[in-house]
Amino acid sequence: MSLTLAVDLGGTHIRAATYNDDSITPIAHHRTRTNAHEPGVFDRVIRAIETVWRSDVASIGVASPGPLDPYTGTILDTPNIPEWQNFPLAQKLSDHFGVPAQLDNDANMAGFGEWTFGAGKGHRNLVYLTISTGVGGGVICNDTLLQGFHGLGAELGHMLIDPNGPPCGCGKNGHVESFSSGTAIARYATEQIQAGQKSSLQADGGLTAAQIADAARAGDTFAISTFARAGYYLGIAVANYLAVFDPSIIIFGGGVSQVGDLLFKSFEESLRTHIFHPRYLDNLSVAQAALGDDSGLLGALAWARLKQNEGARAQ
Amino acid sequence: MSLTLAVDLGGTHIRAATYNDDSITPIAHHRTRTNAHEPGVFDRVIRAIETVWRSDVASIGVASPGPLDPYTGTILDTPNIPEWQNFPLAQKLSDHFGVPAQLDNDANMAGFGEWTFGAGKGHRNLVYLTISTGVGGGVICNDTLLQGFHGLGAELGHMLIDPNGPPCGCGKNGHVESFSSGTAIARYATEQIQAGQKSSLQADGGLTAAQIADAARAGDTFAISTFARAGYYLGIAVANYLAVFDPSIIIFGGGVSQVGDLLFKSFEESLRTHIFHPRYLDNLSVAQAALGDDSGLLGALAWARLKQNEGARAQ
Repeated sequence: MSLTLAVDLGGTHIRAATYNDDSITPIAHHRTRTNAHEPGVFDRVIRAIETVWRSDVASIGVASPGPLDPYTGTILDTPNIPEWQNFPLAQKLSDHFGVPAQLDNDANMAGFGEWTFGAGKGHRNLVYLTISTGVGGGVICNDTLLQGFHGLGAELGHMLIDPNGPPCGCGKNGHVESFSSGTAIARYATEQIQAGQKSSLQADGGLTAAQIADAARAGDTFAISTFARAGYYLGIAVANYLAVFDPSIIIFGGGVSQVGDLLFKSFEESLRTHIFHPRYLDNLSVAQAALGDDSGLLGALAWARLKQNEGARAQ
Repeated sequence: MSLTLAVDLGGTHIRAATYNDDSITPIAHHRTRTNAHEPGVFDRVIRAIETVWRSDVASIGVASPGPLDPYTGTILDTPNIPEWQNFPLAQKLSDHFGVPAQLDNDANMAGFGEWTFGAGKGHRNLVYLTISTGVGGGVICNDTLLQGFHGLGAELGHMLIDPNGPPCGCGKNGHVESFSSGTAIARYATEQIQAGQKSSLQADGGLTAAQIADAARAGDTFAISTFARAGYYLGIAVANYLAVFDPSIIIFGGGVSQVGDLLFKSFEESLRTHIFHPRYLDNLSVAQAALGDDSGLLGALAWARLKQNEGARAQ
């Protein structure tokens, strides 16, 4: 029996866990701070893995922020970790630990995790969307993970939906992320309040989406309309995802997707307004991620197991 | 040895052709007018098939305008053929001719044809885009045709790229088709000229994209800018397709895509401006359809053969 070790490399925490075959309950789990903007991220990853290491670990799977090349296991230029530029993370881990290491981006891995173990089990065509500081996607087409030629597929947050839209974190304009991410919600509210919009919120200290959600739940009309706006554009985005992928399920993950009706009431209205053909909505499941914070970690586990099995079959 | 019969059901012509195994040169070919808005379309399809029928035909493949359900072989409500509402075309053909019949939409079949026999051979991830009166798409992901849960995937022309955009043929606003199709180009030029825009073109008689292309080639500044505008939005659209599918090739088909630099100079500039990450363009092939008007017919051929082989293996 062989073990698989999974790593979820997040903006704030590194998590590492080791699993027996056929189980998603870890036999060891460790969590430490990423301190992404400080030197030594790779050493912190190594130490996290060593903490849960067992001698019969057969492979390592890593979910990491992108953009990255999953085929070579190289981080290209992720804005979260400035010291990693064209950083061959999978190769370095493989060299260090002496077992194969797989790498793909966090949203792809979370989508793969939800498909393998979570809300998307049994669906052949799936769209996973994480809405937090950014907007990321993971897509299953015909029972396979959509990675694409360069491994840059399913960048759903960076679909342009308005050429005159606000700036996105990536530097372009009018992407889904620039309307519906937590960052976008906070920036829009700040700008509007600074421009004289009446609200119980104070914009001086740097608003967060969580504060705006609290104000909305307390009845602040502007805060409510701010989330409704994000939901409206999210409905446009999902209408586009349905037109191109036609999945049987769309799964929402990430902190901002936890706000419920604040976001999803206007989302549903907008989706019905913008959908190209009503048939896309027939028997479409709309679900929350079932694995919560573990989607990415368990996706990396499932992906490492899959690649390990493919490798064994190829021999 | 068995034969395969392919049908391309177009807005103006029905084409039927019969092929030996392993050949894409038909042993019989027939072409007749669709007269889509007049009764009797199904009878015309039957007669076209009968004209090329051979007793050892083992299956029929049909490329048809959508929306349709490829899994049941049912035309849903295609605007081109008003007498077909929830019309079980594949079943009716199968009943009539006593062999299995497969159905999918013309753009999916054209993409599948280009992937099997044409410009996309050997690519694992492919986007085919036809630009004519409308804009249609066909997508190959991981070596399989993207059909989706309802069979409505890859409707690339109906991706919204501007909430304030012009009306689309489908009734929604701001879709790719509402900016970059031949219909959209003609309508934009007509509206601008009627609003006082100076041009050598006369808008009274109902302009066509071909007339505008002729005027542009003759140096008409407004006609040139009309195509440049269509190319600009096409660049936005393709940047979105790359972000979600990350193909290694994008193939253009359809009459409007034949205009060359008139459309593709501004397209390329816009694509470079709007692409989320420059790596999507590394080694990306941009090609014209190699099969010309036969993309859809040969796609229906390849699809019917594939389904025939899958059926044989399943027995």
